[in-house]
Amino acid sequence: MPLIDLPVEDLRRYRAPLTEPDGLEDFWSRTLEETRAHDLALRAERVDVGLPLVEVLDVTFAGFGGHPIKAWLTRPAGATEDLPVVVEYLGYGGGRGLPHEHTLWAAAGYAHLVMDTRGQGSGWGSGGATADPVGAGNATPGVMTRGIEDPHDHYYRRLFTDGVRAVEAARALDGVDASRVAVKGISQGGGIALAVAGLVPDLVAVMPDVPFLCHVRRALDVTDAFPYQELAVYLSVHRERVETVLRTFDHFDGLHLARRATAPALFSVALRDRTCPPSTVYAAHNHYGELTAERTGTRPTAEMVEYPFNQHEGGQQHQLARQLRWFADRI
Amino acid sequence: MPLIDLPVEDLRRYRAPLTEPDGLEDFWSRTLEETRAHDLALRAERVDVGLPLVEVLDVTFAGFGGHPIKAWLTRPAGATEDLPVVVEYLGYGGGRGLPHEHTLWAAAGYAHLVMDTRGQGSGWGSGGATADPVGAGNATPGVMTRGIEDPHDHYYRRLFTDGVRAVEAARALDGVDASRVAVKGISQGGGIALAVAGLVPDLVAVMPDVPFLCHVRRALDVTDAFPYQELAVYLSVHRERVETVLRTFDHFDGLHLARRATAPALFSVALRDRTCPPSTVYAAHNHYGELTAERTGTRPTAEMVEYPFNQHEGGQQHQLARQLRWFADRI
Amino acid sequence: MPLIDLPVEDLRRYRAPLTEPDGLEDFWSRTLEETRAHDLALRAERVDVGLPLVEVLDVTFAGFGGHPIKAWLTRPAGATEDLPVVVEYLGYGGGRGLPHEHTLWAAAGYAHLVMDTRGQGSGWGSGGATADPVGAGNATPGVMTRGIEDPHDHYYRRLFTDGVRAVEAARALDGVDASRVAVKGISQGGGIALAVAGLVPDLVAVMPDVPFLCHVRRALDVTDAFPYQELAVYLSVHRERVETVLRTFDHFDGLHLARRATAPALFSVALRDRTCPPSTVYAAHNHYGELTAERTGTRPTAEMVEYPFNQHEGGQQHQLARQLRWFADRI
Amino acid sequence: MPLIDLPVEDLRRYRAPLTEPDGLEDFWSRTLEETRAHDLALRAERVDVGLPLVEVLDVTFAGFGGHPIKAWLTRPAGATEDLPVVVEYLGYGGGRGLPHEHTLWAAAGYAHLVMDTRGQGSGWGSGGATADPVGAGNATPGVMTRGIEDPHDHYYRRLFTDGVRAVEAARALDGVDASRVAVKGISQGGGIALAVAGLVPDLVAVMPDVPFLCHVRRALDVTDAFPYQELAVYLSVHRERVETVLRTFDHFDGLHLARRATAPALFSVALRDRTCPPSTVYAAHNHYGELTAERTGTRPTAEMVEYPFNQHEGGQQHQLARQLRWFADRI
Amino acid sequence: MPLIDLPVEDLRRYRAPLTEPDGLEDFWSRTLEETRAHDLALRAERVDVGLPLVEVLDVTFAGFGGHPIKAWLTRPAGATEDLPVVVEYLGYGGGRGLPHEHTLWAAAGYAHLVMDTRGQGSGWGSGGATADPVGAGNATPGVMTRGIEDPHDHYYRRLFTDGVRAVEAARALDGVDASRVAVKGISQGGGIALAVAGLVPDLVAVMPDVPFLCHVRRALDVTDAFPYQELAVYLSVHRERVETVLRTFDHFDGLHLARRATAPALFSVALRDRTCPPSTVYAAHNHYGELTAERTGTRPTAEMVEYPFNQHEGGQQHQLARQLRWFADRI
Amino acid sequence: MPLIDLPVEDLRRYRAPLTEPDGLEDFWSRTLEETRAHDLALRAERVDVGLPLVEVLDVTFAGFGGHPIKAWLTRPAGATEDLPVVVEYLGYGGGRGLPHEHTLWAAAGYAHLVMDTRGQGSGWGSGGATADPVGAGNATPGVMTRGIEDPHDHYYRRLFTDGVRAVEAARALDGVDASRVAVKGISQGGGIALAVAGLVPDLVAVMPDVPFLCHVRRALDVTDAFPYQELAVYLSVHRERVETVLRTFDHFDGLHLARRATAPALFSVALRDRTCPPSTVYAAHNHYGELTAERTGTRPTAEMVEYPFNQHEGGQQHQLARQLRWFADRI
Repeated sequence: MPLIDLPVEDLRRYRAPLTEPDGLEDFWSRTLEETRAHDLALRAERVDVGLPLVEVLDVTFAGFGGHPIKAWLTRPAGATEDLPVVVEYLGYGGGRGLPHEHTLWAAAGYAHLVMDTRGQGSGWGSGGATADPVGAGNATPGVMTRGIEDPHDHYYRRLFTDGVRAVEAARALDGVDASRVAVKGISQGGGIALAVAGLVPDLVAVMPDVPFLCHVRRALDVTDAFPYQELAVYLSVHRERVETVLRTFDHFDGLHLARRATAPALFSVALRDRTCPPSTVYAAHNHYGELTAERTGTRPTAEMVEYPFNQHEGGQQHQLARQLRWFADRI
Repeated sequence: MPLIDLPVEDLRRYRAPLTEPDGLEDFWSRTLEETRAHDLALRAERVDVGLPLVEVLDVTFAGFGGHPIKAWLTRPAGATEDLPVVVEYLGYGGGRGLPHEHTLWAAAGYAHLVMDTRGQGSGWGSGGATADPVGAGNATPGVMTRGIEDPHDHYYRRLFTDGVRAVEAARALDGVDASRVAVKGISQGGGIALAVAGLVPDLVAVMPDVPFLCHVRRALDVTDAFPYQELAVYLSVHRERVETVLRTFDHFDGLHLARRATAPALFSVALRDRTCPPSTVYAAHNHYGELTAERTGTRPTAEMVEYPFNQHEGGQQHQLARQLRWFADRI
Repeated sequence: MPLIDLPVEDLRRYRAPLTEPDGLEDFWSRTLEETRAHDLALRAERVDVGLPLVEVLDVTFAGFGGHPIKAWLTRPAGATEDLPVVVEYLGYGGGRGLPHEHTLWAAAGYAHLVMDTRGQGSGWGSGGATADPVGAGNATPGVMTRGIEDPHDHYYRRLFTDGVRAVEAARALDGVDASRVAVKGISQGGGIALAVAGLVPDLVAVMPDVPFLCHVRRALDVTDAFPYQELAVYLSVHRERVETVLRTFDHFDGLHLARRATAPALFSVALRDRTCPPSTVYAAHNHYGELTAERTGTRPTAEMVEYPFNQHEGGQQHQLARQLRWFADRI
Repeated sequence: MPLIDLPVEDLRRYRAPLTEPDGLEDFWSRTLEETRAHDLALRAERVDVGLPLVEVLDVTFAGFGGHPIKAWLTRPAGATEDLPVVVEYLGYGGGRGLPHEHTLWAAAGYAHLVMDTRGQGSGWGSGGATADPVGAGNATPGVMTRGIEDPHDHYYRRLFTDGVRAVEAARALDGVDASRVAVKGISQGGGIALAVAGLVPDLVAVMPDVPFLCHVRRALDVTDAFPYQELAVYLSVHRERVETVLRTFDHFDGLHLARRATAPALFSVALRDRTCPPSTVYAAHNHYGELTAERTGTRPTAEMVEYPFNQHEGGQQHQLARQLRWFADRI
Repeated sequence: MPLIDLPVEDLRRYRAPLTEPDGLEDFWSRTLEETRAHDLALRAERVDVGLPLVEVLDVTFAGFGGHPIKAWLTRPAGATEDLPVVVEYLGYGGGRGLPHEHTLWAAAGYAHLVMDTRGQGSGWGSGGATADPVGAGNATPGVMTRGIEDPHDHYYRRLFTDGVRAVEAARALDGVDASRVAVKGISQGGGIALAVAGLVPDLVAVMPDVPFLCHVRRALDVTDAFPYQELAVYLSVHRERVETVLRTFDHFDGLHLARRATAPALFSVALRDRTCPPSTVYAAHNHYGELTAERTGTRPTAEMVEYPFNQHEGGQQHQLARQLRWFADRI
Repeated sequence: MPLIDLPVEDLRRYRAPLTEPDGLEDFWSRTLEETRAHDLALRAERVDVGLPLVEVLDVTFAGFGGHPIKAWLTRPAGATEDLPVVVEYLGYGGGRGLPHEHTLWAAAGYAHLVMDTRGQGSGWGSGGATADPVGAGNATPGVMTRGIEDPHDHYYRRLFTDGVRAVEAARALDGVDASRVAVKGISQGGGIALAVAGLVPDLVAVMPDVPFLCHVRRALDVTDAFPYQELAVYLSVHRERVETVLRTFDHFDGLHLARRATAPALFSVALRDRTCPPSTVYAAHNHYGELTAERTGTRPTAEMVEYPFNQHEGGQQHQLARQLRWFADRI
C-alpha cells in the first residue's frame, strides 16, 4: 500500500466533523447502570500451564446482561504485593486463546487481564471461549451489523460494556492494586480501550494501537477493507437504511467516547493502514479528552507514535517495547 | 475453473462413504415435535406492489422455537381454484427481498411461497426481514459454525425446521391445494429443499439446484471456497474439535436426509462448481431415496441435469425453463 | 470499493467539459435516414413458454443496414386494449436470453420489448440470438473498438441505430399504444437508452440505470475496469491513434446525445461504481436535455437516485420497484 | 504454477483420443480450392526503417475470401541469391507490429515473412494492420467463438487459410528459394504452423513452440486460462450447444492436422504452462505425421524440447537459439 | 486451500525417492571442520529490557567462515542452577527481533537461545542484526539461489553451519547444562533444526514444525508458493542448469540430513500447507533417523502432530503448548 | 490502471523538492577515483552465434572494486570504420541474456554494448553471468536494500559505477568511435543511464525510458508496486531507520544525478505506470541538466515522449523506432 489517506501534515491537525447523537451520555450511563444491576459473579481459578515463573488464573465475570465473560489473568508467580494491572482487549475475530500466549506483562512485573471477546474467537489464533447469547436480525456475516437497527440491540453495546466490566473485575481480584489500572488493545482492542477510557473515569493509562471503530463514517468513505466492509455490504443491500445504521454506529464511535477520556494515552498509527485508515485514528487522537478539558480544565496527554511504512500490523513489537517503557514511567 | 472433481463418468456412479450419526431420525422427529408444540401462528397480509396480474401476500409463520418467519406468497390475481404451490428456499446470505422479484411461478399459474432465511439476508440482493433470535458461542463469521458444538444448538437445526414449517404454512393458506406441494431452491436453498424432502413425507416434487450442505466432509477436502470455508476456518482455529464439529454437521448433511426422500426429484449440477463441488451433489443424487426404497420397495425418481461448463451459477434460466416443463408434466 | 470519484456534493453540480464533434446531428440524421431506407421487416411470432398469464412474441426487425435484430415482446395474456410499451436494452455481453426472464413489466400491465444486442450475448446469462454481420479492422476483444478508426464503421453506430429501430418496431406492433413508449436499460442498456432518448423525439419516459458510454474521456482517466478497459488496451497498443479513437467515440458519448433528450428521465447512480464511475453518470444527468431547453424553452425533468454503498450492481430490485411507481405515475 | 498436468513420463507417451470429424480433408481441400480461386494479388513495397543491414518489404496478399492480408518480409540487405524463407505466425491478440522487431532471421541470413493476424493485433505489442471483414453471430469477446456454429463460418477457417496463403506468397516473392520454406510460431502462431504443416505438402521445417489450438477438448478440461477460457465462457452461456461447438473446433484442432504433416519438426513445451497445457502439446507431437507414415511409409521426425520450470513463456530466447542451430543444420 | 497433496493415509506411509549426493557426509564433516578452525569468539552481554522476571543476553558467536552471528539468550532471572537450553531457528525472512519477544521458554524455566538468520531479517517482524558478508553470482531475489551453482558456495551451507555453531555457543554459555540441548524451529527454522539434528550427535530433543527445505524436488512439483518459488523462477530463467541446481540443493535437503538424526523428535504438519506441502514434511518424518537405526540398531522416536485444517501457520500456540509438555516429560 | 498520479498538465511543470545530500559530488568523484585505481582489465572474445550479418564479442571489464563485469558487444559484421556506440543498461532482475537478443542497433549500423547487471539476471529472460561478490547486512529480498545503512556499502554504488566503467570499456574497444557514445536503458536501465549521464561528462546522447530510481521519496508515497516495494518492506520492519535509509538512497536518486547531465536526452514516460510513477520520471526530466546550465550557461535539451495509455511497458517498439530516428539525427 502506498499512502492512502491525507498527507501526514494534514493528519496531524485533522479535525473530524462530529456526529455525536443526542443523549450519548445517557445512553451509556443507563447501559452501565442496567449492567451493574447484575452481580459481577467473579470467579478466578488457578490453571497449571507449566510456566513456573507465571501464575495463571482462568477468570469469569458477568458482562452485559449478566452474561459470563472469560478472561485470563497472569501475574508473576509468588508476587506478594498488590500489582498494577493492564487490561487488554482483542482484535476482530480473535479470542483469548491459550494462557501461555499472554506472559509478557507478567514478566514485566504486572498483573495482566486479557478479556475474551463474546461470540468472536473463531477467525484466527487459538480460539475463544465466550458466547454471545443474544440473537440478531438480518445481519452481514461478522458482528458489525448485529442489532444494527437500534443502538440498544447493537453488538458493540454489549462488547464495550463487557470491557467496562473487565476493569471492574480486574479491580476486584486479589493481588491487584485497584488504583493502578491501564487499558490497552490493538485494532478492535484499541477501539474498546478508547471506549472504556471514555466510560471509566479513573484509569491510569490508555494504550490504543491502530484502533478500529473510530470515525466510522469517514472510514466507510476511504476504505473498503474488511471489517469496515461488513457495514458497507449491509448498506449495499439495505439501501433504505443508511442513516439509521450510521446513527446506530455513532453511539459506538471511538471518536465520540475518546473525547470523554481522562487518563494519559499512548496511541500508535500506521500510515499505510487500509483497515483502520490513519485519519480515523488521528480523529480519535486529536479529539482525545477534549470534553474532559472543557469540564475540568485539564486535558489528558495523548502521545502518538507514527509508523510511516506499515500497514495494519503497525508497530508490533516495537510499539510493545515502547509501551513497556512508557507505562513503567507512569506507574 | 477447469474440471476440479472426479471425471464425469465417475461422478455418475459415485457412492459416498456415509457418516450418519446414530439417532438421526430421533433427533429430527423430536425437533419437529418440539416445534409443532408452538402454534403455527400463520398471518398473511395482502401487499400492493403495482402488479395487476399477480397477488402478493406478506406471510408470517412460527418456525423453530416459535420464532416468526417471513415469506412472500404470490399467485395469479383472481385465481379461484386451489393451486399447486412451490415452496422455495434461498441461497446463502440472501433474503426474501422485494415481492416483485418472485412472480414467475405465479405467471406460470401456481402459488409460490418464498421463505426468508433467518438471520441472513444482508449479504447480497434486496434484503431479508427475519431475525434469528438465538445467540451462539464462538463462531466464525456467517452461520455455518453457529452452535457447532452441539447439533441441538446448531443454526441449521433451526433453519431446516423453518423449512418444514414453511411447507405446513403453505398448506394452511387459502387458495392452496395442500396435496400438491413442491420444494425447490438453489445452493443453500437446494440443501434445505433436500432436507425438507427427507423430513416431509408427502411432497409431489423436489427441485434442488447445485445444492449446498451435501457430503460436507468431502466438500471440505476438495474446495476452499466460501461458504464451506467458514467451517475450515473454524477448524483451523479450534484444532481440538475437528471430530465434534464434523459430527454436528452430519446431522444436517443433505446426503443423509436425501436418502429418506420420497418425492420425485429434478437435480442440477455444474461440473466446474467450486462452491458446491459436483461429487457432493452427485452424492446426494446417487443416494436419493435409497432408504425409502428399502422401506417401501419404491424408490423415487431422481433426474440429474449436468451443466458441464458452468461454475456455481449452474443452469440458471435454462434450468428454470426445464423445471417449468418438468413440474407441469408432474402436476 | 471505497468512494472512488468526486465527493457527492461535487458530483451533484459537476459540469463536464464537452467534446462534441462538429456535425454530430448530421451524422446521426444521415445514419437514421440510411437505415430507414431499409424496410422495417417486422415479424412477431407467438411462443409458448408455459406461462398462462403472459403472452410472448418472438420479434424480428431490420436494424442498421437492414440486418435482422431479435427481441422478445411480452404482454399480459388476453389484454385487449393498446398498452404502453417499455423498450429495454441490455448490459454489455448479455443477450435477450429466454422469454420467461422478462415477465415483470407484463405482470405490471404493460407491453415490454427486450432488444437483443447484435454480436454480444455470449458473455453471461442465457444467450443472445442476433448476429453482427459486419467485420472489423484490428480490434481488442469485445465490441468497444470494432471499427474505431471511423465513426461510420463503429459498432455503436450500428447498435444505437438498432435501438432507435426497436422503438419503431415496438410502435408498429399490434396491441401497443405508439404514443406511450418508454426506454430503459442498465449499464450499456442505459447508455443505449440515453442515446435513443436523444435521437427519438417523442418518448414518454427514459430510465437509465448506472449508464455506460457516458463521458468516456473522463471514464478512461478514473477507471481501468472492464469494459472501458478495452479502449485503454487498444490505445496502449495503437499509441499513435489516441485522438482519432477518442474523436470516434465522441459521436457515441451518451453525454452528447443526452443533451438532446426531450422526455422526462429517472436516472440511478452508484457511488462506488468503478465500471461506470459516478461522475460520468452525473455528467449525462446534469446536461440532460439542456439543448432541448435552449431550443424549446422547456427542459425535461431528470431525477437521480443515488445508491451510496453500491458498486455497479446499483439499486437492482429497489430501483426497479421505484421505476414501477414512477412510470405508473407518468402513464 | 506447480506441475498441472500428467507426470512427464506419461506426457512423453501420451496418446490422445482422436475426435476427427468425417470429411476433414474434404473440408480443407475445398476451402483451399475456393481460396485459390481468388488471385494472390501479391504486392511488396520497400520500407525504409533506418536499418542499413536489413531490407524490409511491406507485403500484401489475398488470404481467405480474397481478403487483403499484411506481412513484413525482411532479408539481408543486398543479398543476391535466392534465400530460404521462414514464415512466422503470431500469438493470440498480437499483430505484425513494426518492421524493426523482426530482424533476427535476416541477421541469420534468411528471408523472413511475418504474417499479420486478421482482426487481432490490438491486445499487446505494437499493433496489427489487417482487418477481418467477416461478421459473426453471438460471440464471446475474442475470436475463438466467432462463427462457432458452423466450421465454414469459423474464424480459424479464415486464419489457417491465410497461413497457407502466406506460404504461397513467400514462395512468389523475389529473392526467395521456393523449395526451402519453413513455418514457425509461438502459441497461436505454433497452432497455425502445425495446421499449415498439415495442409502444405512440401515444407522443409516446422517449428511450433508451446502451440495453442491442439487437443482442444482436453484443454477445456485441464485449464481455465485465457484464451481457451473464451470457449468455456461461450459454452457456459450457450448450454445447449456443447457438442456442436466442440465439433466445429475439431476441424481446426492442431492435433488432427499435425497427423498429416510431412516436414521435420522441432517442438517445444513448457511443463508449467496453463495456457497451452503440456498434454495438449504432447498430443500434437506424439501424433505428428502419423498419417503420413501410414500413407508413405515415412514418418517425419519430431523433436521435442522440454522446459520443466517454465509457464507459457516457454523457452523464449533459449529456444530461438536452438532453432537457429537446428534450422541451419537442415538447410 | 483444500487438501493439495496425497490423502492422509498415503502421507503417513509415504516413502520418498532419495537423491542423496555422493559424499554428503564428507561435505558436511569438512564444512564443520573448516568452521571450527575459527575460534567460537563467544560474547554475551546483559541487556536491560525492563522484564524483572527474565534475564536477557545479547550473544555473538562465530558462525560459518568465522562470521559474527547474533542471538538472544533468555533465562529465568536469578536462576542459579545449570538449565536445559532450547536453541531456536527462525522462519524465512525473519530476524531475531527484540528480546522481549522470546520470553516463553524462560518463563517455563529453561534457557533459550534464538539464533539470528544471516542476511535475512528484513521481510517481516522486528528485524535482524546479522550480515551475510558473502556475495553471490546471479540470483533470484531471496537467499534460495545464492551460490546455487556449487554446494560449497550455497547460502544454506553457511546458515546450517551457523545452526550447528549456535548449539556449540549455547553449550559454552554460563548457566547452561550442555548435556541437555534441544533444537526447534518453524518452517525454515524447522528445516535448520532438522539439519542440525543430523549434524550434531548428542541433542536431547528436536522440534520441527511445518519444516521447510525437505524433499525439495517434490516440493517444486506440487507447489508454486513462495519461497520454493524462488528456485522455480531461477530455473525458469537458467533453463540449462536444472540438474546442477537440484544437485546443489540435495546437499541441504532436510530429508537427507534427518535420516542421520539421533534425538527424539516431535514434528508437526499442516495438511493444507502450500508453503511446505505435507508430503515433504512426512518425507522427513518417515525417514527420520533411519540411518542411525542402521548404524546403531536404535531408531530415535519421531512423533507427528497433524493439523488437518491449517495452512502454513500450522498448530501455532496449540503446538507450542504441546511442545512445553512434551519437552518437560523428556527433561 | 487508470491515471494514478498528477494530471498531465501538472506533471509537465512539476518541480520536485530536492533532497540532495551534502557532499554528493565528492561521494561520487571519490568512488570513481577508487574504481579507476583498478585496471580496466578489458577482454573481448569473438562468439559465433550463427548470424552472418552481426559480429558478437563477449566482453569483460573491471567494474566497481575491480570486479569482473560481463557485456555483449555487437556490431555490423565486417564494418571497417570506427562506429558510434550505444551502451545499454538493463531492467531490474534481468541479465544480458543471449547475444542474438541484441542485434537491432548493429542492424542499424552502430556498435552496441549491453552491460550485464551484477547479481541480478535470474528473475526473467535468458539469464545473466555477472556475480556481485559483495555481501550485505540484513536485507529484504532483491537488491534495493543491500547495504542500505551506508551509501558506501549500497548496491547501487557498485552498479552505477559499473555503468560508468561500461562507457570506458566501450570507448576502449576496437572499432568504436570513443567520441560518439550514447547511453540508454529502460526502467532500472534508464535509471543507470541517467546516473551515468550525470557522472560522465562527454556523452553524445542519453535515452532513458520509464526510468526507475528517480525521486524515490515520492515514489514510496505514490506506489506500492515492486520493486520500490522492497524499500517499503524494509522500512516496515526496520521502523527506526527511515531517515537513514532514505538518506542513503538520496545518493543514488536519478533526480539528483540528472541535474548534472550534459548530453541531449530523449525521455519517455507512461502515464499509467505504477512501477515508475510519471511524476518521478518528470521530476528527473524537469530538472535534467539544470546544474550544467548554472555552471556553463548551456542546458542540454531533454525531450519527453508521453504514452498516455500505457503502464510500465511504456512505448516499447514505438519508442525504439523513435530512438533510432532521433539518434540518427544526432550522429
